[in-house]
Amino acid sequence: MPFILSPDPARRPRVLIINPNATEAFTEGIRGTLRADVELDFYTAPAAHAPASIESATDEIVSAAACLSELRAHVDKWDGFVVACFSAHPLVPALRELSAAPAVGILEASLLMGSTLGGRVGILTTSPRWEPLLEGEIAALGLAGKNAAGVVSSGLAVLDLEELPRASVIKVLCTAAADVLQDRRGADVIVLGCAGMAGLEDAVGEACQPGLVVLDPVRCGLEMCLGLIRMGARTSKVGLYAPA
Amino acid sequence: MPFILSPDPARRPRVLIINPNATEAFTEGIRGTLRADVELDFYTAPAAHAPASIESATDEIVSAAACLSELRAHVDKWDGFVVACFSAHPLVPALRELSAAPAVGILEASLLMGSTLGGRVGILTTSPRWEPLLEGEIAALGLAGKNAAGVVSSGLAVLDLEELPRASVIKVLCTAAADVLQDRRGADVIVLGCAGMAGLEDAVGEACQPGLVVLDPVRCGLEMCLGLIRMGARTSKVGLYAPA
Amino acid sequence: MPFILSPDPARRPRVLIINPNATEAFTEGIRGTLRADVELDFYTAPAAHAPASIESATDEIVSAAACLSELRAHVDKWDGFVVACFSAHPLVPALRELSAAPAVGILEASLLMGSTLGGRVGILTTSPRWEPLLEGEIAALGLAGKNAAGVVSSGLAVLDLEELPRASVIKVLCTAAADVLQDRRGADVIVLGCAGMAGLEDAVGEACQPGLVVLDPVRCGLEMCLGLIRMGARTSKVGLYAPA
Amino acid sequence: MPFILSPDPARRPRVLIINPNATEAFTEGIRGTLRADVELDFYTAPAAHAPASIESATDEIVSAAACLSELRAHVDKWDGFVVACFSAHPLVPALRELSAAPAVGILEASLLMGSTLGGRVGILTTSPRWEPLLEGEIAALGLAGKNAAGVVSSGLAVLDLEELPRASVIKVLCTAAADVLQDRRGADVIVLGCAGMAGLEDAVGEACQPGLVVLDPVRCGLEMCLGLIRMGARTSKVGLYAPA
Amino acid sequence: MPFILSPDPARRPRVLIINPNATEAFTEGIRGTLRADVELDFYTAPAAHAPASIESATDEIVSAAACLSELRAHVDKWDGFVVACFSAHPLVPALRELSAAPAVGILEASLLMGSTLGGRVGILTTSPRWEPLLEGEIAALGLAGKNAAGVVSSGLAVLDLEELPRASVIKVLCTAAADVLQDRRGADVIVLGCAGMAGLEDAVGEACQPGLVVLDPVRCGLEMCLGLIRMGARTSKVGLYAPA
Amino acid sequence: MPFILSPDPARRPRVLIINPNATEAFTEGIRGTLRADVELDFYTAPAAHAPASIESATDEIVSAAACLSELRAHVDKWDGFVVACFSAHPLVPALRELSAAPAVGILEASLLMGSTLGGRVGILTTSPRWEPLLEGEIAALGLAGKNAAGVVSSGLAVLDLEELPRASVIKVLCTAAADVLQDRRGADVIVLGCAGMAGLEDAVGEACQPGLVVLDPVRCGLEMCLGLIRMGARTSKVGLYAPA
Repeated sequence: MPFILSPDPARRPRVLIINPNATEAFTEGIRGTLRADVELDFYTAPAAHAPASIESATDEIVSAAACLSELRAHVDKWDGFVVACFSAHPLVPALRELSAAPAVGILEASLLMGSTLGGRVGILTTSPRWEPLLEGEIAALGLAGKNAAGVVSSGLAVLDLEELPRASVIKVLCTAAADVLQDRRGADVIVLGCAGMAGLEDAVGEACQPGLVVLDPVRCGLEMCLGLIRMGARTSKVGLYAPA
Repeated sequence: MPFILSPDPARRPRVLIINPNATEAFTEGIRGTLRADVELDFYTAPAAHAPASIESATDEIVSAAACLSELRAHVDKWDGFVVACFSAHPLVPALRELSAAPAVGILEASLLMGSTLGGRVGILTTSPRWEPLLEGEIAALGLAGKNAAGVVSSGLAVLDLEELPRASVIKVLCTAAADVLQDRRGADVIVLGCAGMAGLEDAVGEACQPGLVVLDPVRCGLEMCLGLIRMGARTSKVGLYAPA
Repeated sequence: MPFILSPDPARRPRVLIINPNATEAFTEGIRGTLRADVELDFYTAPAAHAPASIESATDEIVSAAACLSELRAHVDKWDGFVVACFSAHPLVPALRELSAAPAVGILEASLLMGSTLGGRVGILTTSPRWEPLLEGEIAALGLAGKNAAGVVSSGLAVLDLEELPRASVIKVLCTAAADVLQDRRGADVIVLGCAGMAGLEDAVGEACQPGLVVLDPVRCGLEMCLGLIRMGARTSKVGLYAPA
Repeated sequence: MPFILSPDPARRPRVLIINPNATEAFTEGIRGTLRADVELDFYTAPAAHAPASIESATDEIVSAAACLSELRAHVDKWDGFVVACFSAHPLVPALRELSAAPAVGILEASLLMGSTLGGRVGILTTSPRWEPLLEGEIAALGLAGKNAAGVVSSGLAVLDLEELPRASVIKVLCTAAADVLQDRRGADVIVLGCAGMAGLEDAVGEACQPGLVVLDPVRCGLEMCLGLIRMGARTSKVGLYAPA
Repeated sequence: MPFILSPDPARRPRVLIINPNATEAFTEGIRGTLRADVELDFYTAPAAHAPASIESATDEIVSAAACLSELRAHVDKWDGFVVACFSAHPLVPALRELSAAPAVGILEASLLMGSTLGGRVGILTTSPRWEPLLEGEIAALGLAGKNAAGVVSSGLAVLDLEELPRASVIKVLCTAAADVLQDRRGADVIVLGCAGMAGLEDAVGEACQPGLVVLDPVRCGLEMCLGLIRMGARTSKVGLYAPA
Repeated sequence: MPFILSPDPARRPRVLIINPNATEAFTEGIRGTLRADVELDFYTAPAAHAPASIESATDEIVSAAACLSELRAHVDKWDGFVVACFSAHPLVPALRELSAAPAVGILEASLLMGSTLGGRVGILTTSPRWEPLLEGEIAALGLAGKNAAGVVSSGLAVLDLEELPRASVIKVLCTAAADVLQDRRGADVIVLGCAGMAGLEDAVGEACQPGLVVLDPVRCGLEMCLGLIRMGARTSKVGLYAPA
């Protein structure tokens, strides 16, 4: 079991950023936004088995199984994992069972970190399909109390984020953020609810009231993971995440 | 989309009982306990891809993906589905997305039905590994309030249920049921928390105080599914379970 | 104590459908919608003591006491009971104390069954008076989490359902269902929240988005009760429902 | 509608203390413990229709209906009502519907007032039968969070409180209070959970750690009711307690 | 420790009403609305150290520390304390630690008492700044379930209540009460959410539907405190409020 | 307002670690355990005004006010704040109101981070006095669901941690961790619940089952704060933490 008992301060942590869908452009988008002072590896799910985007519970299972079959034998290569799908993706608990290196999901990390920055965190998601799905998953994570402003759809499909002109994407996201999450729901912190929105936090923030905070969940996931690694923290092996 | 709009009263409903692990003996054990006046088909997950028993979140994903790859193209053959794994098995929401025929999990069905029969439902599970796993899943299903007496491990492994002498199995289960769930936790209804315990409800009931109720979750799942079918109920296609 | 220990598969279950108000027309309305392959008896509360319709906590007590005084001595005649008032009617726990035959309320049964068919169940009730009453009772049943889309009044009085022209009734119900529950509250499953709406589920469903599910709670109650009977399940006699 | 719009400061408030069981000795026991500077009337439920003690949901209904049939026409005689049964007695919401004078139950009042005096309120009840009944009713009142130390049975039947020698009663209550509620459950406030325990709070308090608080719920109910009356507060007539 | 073990019925209780901000006019406003048949002392926080009004968590700390430094040595002079700031003011738990005389906050008292008068209590506060602050504090007090209609800002600053013409103040409050809390949120009981609104309950009530109840929280706090004193109740000294 | 809009990657973040009690030895103990690759400043509350240790709600107020009076004018010197008292210390929300630099409490940070490492986080505190105090504060932070194994006292006073021989301290902590939190409460992650326990996590971990995780909350607080700073995250200024 790859316990990281005494992190070597001279060694830079090595983290695997997992894009569990099969769209390379998403992985590239994420890569461009992350800091350069740690060793980051990037993984994209195999196009032969995983969906191009994740839009349902079925997609999550297929995606998780496709990633597991490739990653399972290699988990001891990394000091930590970030699962870069904005959901309660089942790969997160699976990685916690398979490794003692910290494994973090970006939905969870962004709600945990966002809850220290304001009183009403809201989530800006893609299609309306994600509203009930995310609300259910957030409740299942025990984090409904940390999402007081709820989940609001922008109406964009996940793949629209890659395919539409950037200016159109930003315009649609800004409207949903400012008109619905800020004005109607009273959000003081907004989380961009899709890994495909990476890098858009400043643009969305400019559409909102000055002082409102917009968070990129992938960066939250990476920072949470690095913090755990730097403390030498590892996943517990005696309870919920004991090996099977 | 296979909507069952007007159930033909002359036709007997056809239900698929899914054992999502690869152990045929479990499927046989279940088959022996179910009523004979409906059309029941039985499915066992493929040994090449699915685990022999389900003991972790990782097992659940692998099991669900293995079943999905075989069943996905054929879901329109049945009027309803029972997923006979005592967990929040991810196949349940996936089937609800893929079909409008009712899909029921046995953990969910037994807690829902048990909650109409007493005030403190308790669950008798197998190994200690399942205690935190089930408690987390029950909370995620929004059913913690329907499991007031909690989850108690008998200490038996899932496969012990098939491999140990029946008398030994019963003795161990009876002790955990009577001493822990009934006496210490105050359960008035006990759910047998593993499909592999099918058929043992009378034996366990005899070890408890007369009047205490012991439920077989597979029979709960089947009756809940049949009730939904007989009403002509179907899974909603406009919200949480909309097709992807 | 009338335990139903070994249900005779050759004998058809006998269920008492209880209309706890004194309006015979309601009982007749219900009778017309229920399946014919079990033995159903129907009971209407006595006009001398029970209210014509149930509209308050006071009505519930008076209705329950009136029914209890007549039914108490005869509860061993039936294999199960359905209390056909859409509320947390106090007759339900009373019957569970007085008999071991399953006793089911239609509010409870429809929320439990509806929660397996979608993610946001909503309730369409009669007068605005019922909104706070039902919300409180649903919370008291521990089912608030299964009623995410809430309770919406159609504005009709209970007795309007019998007295107004059917087309007017349907029109009013359809507007509340489609405009409020579906569009504003995001319901994917709608429960008709009054026994007097029996038989209207198809008409209301046609006003909504295709794929949205509309449930008749009396049929839910009957199917839940039959499922429990067919399993041989009985009410626990050692805890919450022990005889006094 | 008997609104008490401007309480006359010169007039002493008149409160009806309702013992909803048919045992006069209970009423007398309560009367002996209450303050003398307000007008108190005492009512005992009719022996012909109400139970001698209340031990079940069935008893609550029968008791409530018996009281309602006698009191309904006379509710405008009082400035407030205290229902002196330690339960979520259904007479409380019924009185709130029938009158605008404040109506208070003693379970509710003692938990509300006790929650201002400590962090972990516990309840000392009579027979084990009451443990699941009270836990369910406290949750239904939305007060589970105000009963952190739970409900503990002394093993005494309700009528034992009248019939056994006082010294024996006190000894049994003291043991349950000190050994279970104080030591094992960590209660810092103990509520005597039966109107029949009126007047025993000092004796029980002496068995506990100095500084622990023991409350008589009937006195809580009376003080809460008087406070509401003295403010000129009345039950709202536009929502939950609107007249039917 | 100043236990009030046997309240002398001949002695009138002596209560300290604490205005924890430094604005004397608020103290005067409160004094004018309270009953005259008990001994009331009034305290205003020192202008040198406390804020003129309380508008933030920072203000609460500064205000509480300023009051504590003056009051700490004198707490045994009173039979009870009312902290007349509509918040979860930290002075309340501090007084409970420092004295056994009951200490009551007006937010807490008004929600507890209001919950016996209706089903949906709503709060009318001052500036929008207080909406998230109060919602968080009410949840922290475990009273979110007793504030179903939520917190609504009138838009007025706290000091506006003293400085604007009374007619303008009333007009603004009435609009928020009737249009938002009553009509949109379905409140049946409205609590005036600032000590500075003392005496305005009748004016606001007249703007609402007849039968809706409007409560002055300072009067609630005083009556709750007097009820506790008259019972001889004291703060528990063995758990949450044990002396440090 | 000191917004940290574009963190300079070349500049090392500067964080203030605040020990809000007046015992320098605690500050020194903490300093010895923290990483050296960021700029850390350390602050101890003034002995003239703050308590030597924090043991009550009263202490928290006095401590917070003492710190605020010294720090208030200087908050723009730091990129982030860690309040190193294991409580819901009121300085945390005050700093969030006074600055946009992230402010983190160590109780909150350790529960948030611990919840990603296991299923049942437990807390090992000092004296029994802290059990009800912490349970209340954790609920108030909305984190009760992240503390499934509860709070357990070691019986040591806060100052014992400095004054008793280290071996004795460790022995007592190990017994409480292993016998109570691990064995009886089923904790899989244990948080050391006092800043004075800094540096003892390995010693406590050795007394527990291999694979169980023990966390030092100050290190959690620092890593959470650094993660927020490195993302450029700032406290929201439009809702709960808007300036007064």
